[in-house]
Amino acid sequence: MKYGVVAFPSKKLQDLANAYRKRYDPHYALITPHMTVKGVFEANDQEIAEVAKAIKKVTNKHKPFELSVSKVSSFAPITNTIYFKAELNDDLEALHKDLNYNFPGDEPEFAFVPHVTIAQKLTSGEHDDIIGQLKMVGVDHTETIDRLHLLYQLEDGSWTVYETFRLDEDN
Amino acid sequence: MKYGVVAFPSKKLQDLANAYRKRYDPHYALITPHMTVKGVFEANDQEIAEVAKAIKKVTNKHKPFELSVSKVSSFAPITNTIYFKAELNDDLEALHKDLNYNFPGDEPEFAFVPHVTIAQKLTSGEHDDIIGQLKMVGVDHTETIDRLHLLYQLEDGSWTVYETFRLDEDN
Repeated sequence: MKYGVVAFPSKKLQDLANAYRKRYDPHYALITPHMTVKGVFEANDQEIAEVAKAIKKVTNKHKPFELSVSKVSSFAPITNTIYFKAELNDDLEALHKDLNYNFPGDEPEFAFVPHVTIAQKLTSGEHDDIIGQLKMVGVDHTETIDRLHLLYQLEDGSWTVYETFRLDEDN
Repeated sequence: MKYGVVAFPSKKLQDLANAYRKRYDPHYALITPHMTVKGVFEANDQEIAEVAKAIKKVTNKHKPFELSVSKVSSFAPITNTIYFKAELNDDLEALHKDLNYNFPGDEPEFAFVPHVTIAQKLTSGEHDDIIGQLKMVGVDHTETIDRLHLLYQLEDGSWTVYETFRLDEDN
């Protein structure tokens, strides 16, 4: 089964992202707006119990972090994906590191670029048509993220939450 | 903001429900297959923090329960909703009671009929066309539910998980 770890932002930021995703993201209906903290990985029922324990251990020792998005960016020409770029602050970087290195599963192949996707699977023409305006409209939002969610994927591609982990040293 | 409390069944049962929902449920894309344990209620940010605490208190003292679906049923003629009917065992009934009576918010107006919806908003014609076959195919699945999820609704109608609560006296 496929799993992933994400942060779901507040309703406010999700509504904002969905205004774009509805038109520009074919994954719109499969998952609500999110920031991925640990990308898709495979695990069976036994493995995921171990991974969930390991996530809990990590989240227990991390504090809530600030999610600050202030810019629309694009992964083009690698992929025609447009996103709200999140600031990579120390708290978030440390959390990502602990969930992806010296952690069960493969290490990421790419550098961590924290983001909330608002458009993807665009043709180059579509991408070039809208990127200018999206950048101009921009985004400016800051909030505190105090929990992560471990998700699993259904056969139709949609994602369900398996468990929530609070970022809270006292919990 | 609108909130609700549900149980998400295993991938197996969700995939089974989605095979029908994809065709027959306009809410298909808004939420993955679920059994509602506390129906939609309104709360502001302060209230929901209190409600979350109250849910935790309830789930802490309840054990995991058996979700057993063995029959396809319909709410027609009240609404043209077709569902996997879940057995109302003592554990589930007690859990529902503690989350809905002597609990923050209004008490339910209807008796609790635990179920996983597989078709809704059908015309009477559509309903009558498919109910016979769905009943004949039926369903037969039992699993243990060991967690509940508190969800909130976005502007587009989709639901995001706010928090997971394990049913576990020792936790």
